[in-house]
Amino acid sequence: MCQLLGINCAEPSDLSFSWSGFSARSSSGYSDGFGIAFFERRAARVFLDPHPASSSPLADFLRQHPIRTTHAIAHLRRATQGDVSLANAHPFSRELWGRHWVFAHNGDLDWSGEPSFSRDRFAPVGETDSERAFCWMLSRLSDRFSAEPSGSDLFEALGGLTAQLERRGIFNFILSNGSHLFAFCSSKLHLLERQPPFGVAELCDLPLRFDLSSRSGPSDRFCLLATDPLTRDEPWRSLPRGSLWMFESGRASAWRQLTAGREPKGLCSV
Amino acid sequence: MCQLLGINCAEPSDLSFSWSGFSARSSSGYSDGFGIAFFERRAARVFLDPHPASSSPLADFLRQHPIRTTHAIAHLRRATQGDVSLANAHPFSRELWGRHWVFAHNGDLDWSGEPSFSRDRFAPVGETDSERAFCWMLSRLSDRFSAEPSGSDLFEALGGLTAQLERRGIFNFILSNGSHLFAFCSSKLHLLERQPPFGVAELCDLPLRFDLSSRSGPSDRFCLLATDPLTRDEPWRSLPRGSLWMFESGRASAWRQLTAGREPKGLCSV
Repeated sequence: MCQLLGINCAEPSDLSFSWSGFSARSSSGYSDGFGIAFFERRAARVFLDPHPASSSPLADFLRQHPIRTTHAIAHLRRATQGDVSLANAHPFSRELWGRHWVFAHNGDLDWSGEPSFSRDRFAPVGETDSERAFCWMLSRLSDRFSAEPSGSDLFEALGGLTAQLERRGIFNFILSNGSHLFAFCSSKLHLLERQPPFGVAELCDLPLRFDLSSRSGPSDRFCLLATDPLTRDEPWRSLPRGSLWMFESGRASAWRQLTAGREPKGLCSV
Repeated sequence: MCQLLGINCAEPSDLSFSWSGFSARSSSGYSDGFGIAFFERRAARVFLDPHPASSSPLADFLRQHPIRTTHAIAHLRRATQGDVSLANAHPFSRELWGRHWVFAHNGDLDWSGEPSFSRDRFAPVGETDSERAFCWMLSRLSDRFSAEPSGSDLFEALGGLTAQLERRGIFNFILSNGSHLFAFCSSKLHLLERQPPFGVAELCDLPLRFDLSSRSGPSDRFCLLATDPLTRDEPWRSLPRGSLWMFESGRASAWRQLTAGREPKGLCSV
């Protein structure tokens, strides 16, 4: 089982507190590489490293030098398919309709017996089940829409694609194009909606507290998604298995019960 | 005029000496963002920043924490088209045939009066003439080859595309897919071929000397491309204007006089 983190904010925000807690999880067995993507409008910059986040100078740099963003996706890898390499580090990114798309996955999909899909518009660079799923989803979106569709049309289309892919196995994912952030809870994903008034948060994974009101104003709103809750004493909720979500401007703008979901146990053979 | 750097090595090598000298140029007016891409086989990781490399903590991190690679492309931007933003920072990257492709440009291309090309497979995320040229080239390669062609077929195809694009203006560029590195000297580009025995090199832009033999072995070979020579007392040569080059395993494997080239003066209005 890998670890996922997704953040959508109403205003560009400093994520270093969340990244500090999240990246500390690397030392609990999620040590086969990490990545974090920060959107700046239509463009994303993605920092990837095939080394453990707990000991990586790059992960430490990102803790010390915050990058403000409205949409971020991070991932700590415990390899199930594909070796430990840069090509297999999540999140993956592609350009479609003049936007970057960024994707990270937690689970295990069975592609055995499937022919490769070399005629598709998007093809994997590495060997993971995850990048293959991302490329398949983007290729199908590209087949269906000749230009960028609305968020609600994307949400509907992603629903059909997600249900098809989840037949292959556990498929928790977070996806963003810098405008919307989408998340699917196949077996396990938690959501925290933060809004004013802001209080003090304490990380679950580090002895670190932070007064959220010191850097947030009345127009700030945040949605945080994580495989396991990042902080204590905040109202994290376990999302229903099989539910697909859409976030924009720091709010959940749509959700839908898509499938019956998957049992979390037994996934991710390592 | 921006600044380009491209490196192709026979063995994965530490580029921090070259990056230190190159990034110091940022303080001479090339301060509208920077980027550097490092290939690890088919995959590239690209570090981008819309801030000046001379004062960026990320540029300093990359000087202090070398990443070994066989193919690297770096760029310091002096904006001519498009604002100073992440989306407009070079090098640009895309995936084609299951490989990352990375591109950086120095020059100024006139796309005025041209319709946008929304039906193309690759579309720009930002507003630069450069990313548009990159997307156009990759789209045409994708139209022509359904699967990855050989290096020599790529070299021939890139020749035709480059000649077409140079009609629009100054078009010095460096392009790589992690297997080959291509470079076109439209108006100005220098090449250094380093091979054993290695000596001591001194940077042009910093008071820094380095004994190349201390980290290089008998099987090492390097080709360095830069807008202006990076080091003193090494045999940098000015490439012929209008010449297209292909590098692999630290050697120039092909070159061709493609056009008459362009005069360097008057380019890159700032």
